[in-house]
Amino acid sequence: MMTMTRLEQQLAFCKELDRLKGVLRQSLLMDASRRENSAEHSWHLATMAILLAEYAAVPVDVTRVLKMLLVHDVVEIDAGDTFAYDTVNIETQHAREQQAADRLFGTLPSEQGTELRALWNEFEERTTPESQYANALDRLQPLMQNFYSGGASWKKHQVTHEQVMKRMEAVKIGMPEVWPFVLKLLDEAAKAGFVLY
Amino acid sequence: MMTMTRLEQQLAFCKELDRLKGVLRQSLLMDASRRENSAEHSWHLATMAILLAEYAAVPVDVTRVLKMLLVHDVVEIDAGDTFAYDTVNIETQHAREQQAADRLFGTLPSEQGTELRALWNEFEERTTPESQYANALDRLQPLMQNFYSGGASWKKHQVTHEQVMKRMEAVKIGMPEVWPFVLKLLDEAAKAGFVLY
Repeated sequence: MMTMTRLEQQLAFCKELDRLKGVLRQSLLMDASRRENSAEHSWHLATMAILLAEYAAVPVDVTRVLKMLLVHDVVEIDAGDTFAYDTVNIETQHAREQQAADRLFGTLPSEQGTELRALWNEFEERTTPESQYANALDRLQPLMQNFYSGGASWKKHQVTHEQVMKRMEAVKIGMPEVWPFVLKLLDEAAKAGFVLY
Repeated sequence: MMTMTRLEQQLAFCKELDRLKGVLRQSLLMDASRRENSAEHSWHLATMAILLAEYAAVPVDVTRVLKMLLVHDVVEIDAGDTFAYDTVNIETQHAREQQAADRLFGTLPSEQGTELRALWNEFEERTTPESQYANALDRLQPLMQNFYSGGASWKKHQVTHEQVMKRMEAVKIGMPEVWPFVLKLLDEAAKAGFVLY
């Protein structure tokens, strides 16, 4: 087997990233034209992270947040997207994603793979200010997608107001000043029949 | 007219961002399944910027590069994507994009709109280390998209080897160590008949 140079390893990873564009989420675009993929979702979150940083519960290192959000779904290249309200597949999600992280980050030069893997772990553990802010965005953006697309994915999966409220807890933690906006949108969603009561 | 609060302005911009997912580029995904959109393209560039920062011609502030790449195509929400080898629309591109930048960044709280507009201008002007690195990535990634999708968009638009070489100059400037990889890929592309000689 030929040994890859450092640059070849990195470019091979860059090539592999393309596959995340083919991983479809349950959320639709806001114009309801099609399902959102995990690559454009990640872009949306990272760009929102720039715009809304002032609302993080405690001051955050925006660079770390951006890196975290850009790679937070990369494991889905192998593991696929798991719907937040899917009670069956969510049980195996952790093991599937750990295996994906081992393989994918393992293809990079080791110190680089280690850095990105650590950022992914941090995102999953939600104990640092950066990961709590990042997770808040990862709840807020799908709320907006679902609401503005007419609740399409909530209705399809018969999601309840209570389920969404529980899922949105991360916004209360990571972006407390944005919490009233979440409540307002959810209230409107309930009135419009987008979520079950 | 009701006055929007600062947060409302920012969330309205976050909502508007969703439209970039509907702006289609000429490049196909590497599996040639469909055209790439500008949102997932921006994610790909930003993630590559993390991975390849060590190859920037001079050391760069990665945070500024990430912000720049995340917003570099936002003007296309109004102006649409202009194909790099389109000699007609490229003449009006500048004016269309300036107008789009005025409107879009103008909807944000002023200091935030000013910051992002300045980053976009910087990207377009390509005179700083950060913008030269960002532009190099914005050439390298479509090269990979085109090459690995079997030259689909080059063939469709009868793009020549010389045109691609000229377009890739930005890689030579912003990421000189990666230039040999560009030459190798282009050589293979020519041999495979993906570009015209």
